[in-house]
Amino acid sequence: MSENHYAEFSECSMKPQDVLEYVSGPMPVPAEGEVLIRMKAAPINPADINFVQGVYGVKPVLPHSRAGLEGCGMVQESRAEGFRKDDEVILLRGVGSWSEYVAVPAVNVMKLPVKVDPVQAAMLKVNPLTALRMLEGFVSLTPGDWVVQNASNSGVGRCIIQLAREMGVKTVNFVRRPDELRDELTALGADLVVGEDDEDVVKNTLARLDGKRPVLASNAVGGESALRLMDMLAPGGSMVTYGAMSRKSIKVPNGFLIFKGIKLEGLWVTQWLKNAPVPEIEAAYDKLARLMADGRLKQAVDTVYPLSDVRRAVEKAQEEFRSGKVVLSMERA
Amino acid sequence: MSENHYAEFSECSMKPQDVLEYVSGPMPVPAEGEVLIRMKAAPINPADINFVQGVYGVKPVLPHSRAGLEGCGMVQESRAEGFRKDDEVILLRGVGSWSEYVAVPAVNVMKLPVKVDPVQAAMLKVNPLTALRMLEGFVSLTPGDWVVQNASNSGVGRCIIQLAREMGVKTVNFVRRPDELRDELTALGADLVVGEDDEDVVKNTLARLDGKRPVLASNAVGGESALRLMDMLAPGGSMVTYGAMSRKSIKVPNGFLIFKGIKLEGLWVTQWLKNAPVPEIEAAYDKLARLMADGRLKQAVDTVYPLSDVRRAVEKAQEEFRSGKVVLSMERA
Repeated sequence: MSENHYAEFSECSMKPQDVLEYVSGPMPVPAEGEVLIRMKAAPINPADINFVQGVYGVKPVLPHSRAGLEGCGMVQESRAEGFRKDDEVILLRGVGSWSEYVAVPAVNVMKLPVKVDPVQAAMLKVNPLTALRMLEGFVSLTPGDWVVQNASNSGVGRCIIQLAREMGVKTVNFVRRPDELRDELTALGADLVVGEDDEDVVKNTLARLDGKRPVLASNAVGGESALRLMDMLAPGGSMVTYGAMSRKSIKVPNGFLIFKGIKLEGLWVTQWLKNAPVPEIEAAYDKLARLMADGRLKQAVDTVYPLSDVRRAVEKAQEEFRSGKVVLSMERA
Repeated sequence: MSENHYAEFSECSMKPQDVLEYVSGPMPVPAEGEVLIRMKAAPINPADINFVQGVYGVKPVLPHSRAGLEGCGMVQESRAEGFRKDDEVILLRGVGSWSEYVAVPAVNVMKLPVKVDPVQAAMLKVNPLTALRMLEGFVSLTPGDWVVQNASNSGVGRCIIQLAREMGVKTVNFVRRPDELRDELTALGADLVVGEDDEDVVKNTLARLDGKRPVLASNAVGGESALRLMDMLAPGGSMVTYGAMSRKSIKVPNGFLIFKGIKLEGLWVTQWLKNAPVPEIEAAYDKLARLMADGRLKQAVDTVYPLSDVRRAVEKAQEEFRSGKVVLSMERA
């Protein structure tokens, strides 16, 4: 095989399906210190959409920017210490995962400690790590504590439910379709699944927490939804924002900060991955990969498309109601 | 002397001057563990106004609630260990400082380590401590770092300028009347004094910071003003809110939290005083009292009124442009 295929774009657009192209080019050649990876799968995350739109925290270098911020594959050729052919790996940094082959510095790659299903492993980097950092990085949680989140049916949301269950931490989960999703999320470990549209939802939900209040709020929505989370928090609690699906600013009543002592912080694992000590990163992924291999951490998948269908896949990934992630496979024609 | 005089109110009102009354009652008698204090002076802070309005974090017990959240005096009679007649003290907790005499548990009182002018000492509890906590409690500041604040001409704002100067930390100070105040605040140690109304103020001000950005923002205003502070902050910086003069919520662009990694927290020294270890509280006030005694920490005073003029004083304290605090004196007829 002397040809590589990948998804690229040469201008940003709010409609990524209009600018993404499935193209071919020469096989990448790994330099000293790099590994050549045959990619197996890569998901389509909101961050990927935003990246092609040009509104993400990492900006594409145009023209001919390659897309895809995470994925998994197998080492085809290694010119770096510690890696050899057939090692199963995930990409930790950089873009271009929507490719058949990539050559990347070994420091941007992590070997999986256990055998993980490729479609699940492809989604290991961002969502499970975001969930883990959310639960471990801000507030010291002990069993019996409550965490409240919105966007609970999202990739991160579902990981938070499952990781909290592992920690003995209880979750209040806001979703838009509680009746449809209650059983599924409860099966993952959700303690409460509640709709966001009820006017008295804060009061009514708090009444179900045995006199406790959440000490941590995970916010991926912003706007009114974030306000509800802050309203529910215990004094001194933290709201951590990792997404902004409503595209609306967070409105913080001053008294929440001054008198209730609430903290607001942000979480962006791309940044964390840049700065955290390597052993800490490895420990986090080791824990997550093992939970995934055991089936205790699973992300829902809506559809798997071959890489050549990248436009259709990206369109699907932007549909509002899906049953899970859209994933690109490089192993299907 | 067998009579006591004090300010009380029996209903809350947005116009404290309409409900506050200067009344007389029997002399308080200290119980075991208490001290009887002859008050010397007490300031009128926004918190006092809000307390009488019923919108403060501490709610009055009506009817016959006494007003005044801080002040200084001299021990008249001690029934507590560690205190004796003529000790100069400030009130650390509780309300009712707008009185000629108060009997309070010794734990609510702190002895001054040095001789401080009573009008200045009366303002030691809240504003200087707020400024000290602001500079010491959230971000680790080193000489040459920048701090940005709004409401810089307020009691706390001026303390921040002076304490930052002591630490070798530089300050950007937003005020509404930069041309009138520049000389005065610069004399206190302000590095930059800027108006808030200029459209390009953020860009223009950043250009004057030698390529640095503030790592801490002190916010007492909210609304647009808070947004400007966040905009100026360095990545990973903190905005700490201790007041809400504009009465407008803080609008936080999600990206500030996620991509810029900014933190939002609140500061309420009343709460801190409740929870902090006693040695830490004493160390803070010791430092502040000594700076005050040395004239290195000074709060501006607009007018001193006798306690009997409490209504007029409270009205004056609500006027927008004053040259400093309004203080009640119990030593003037």
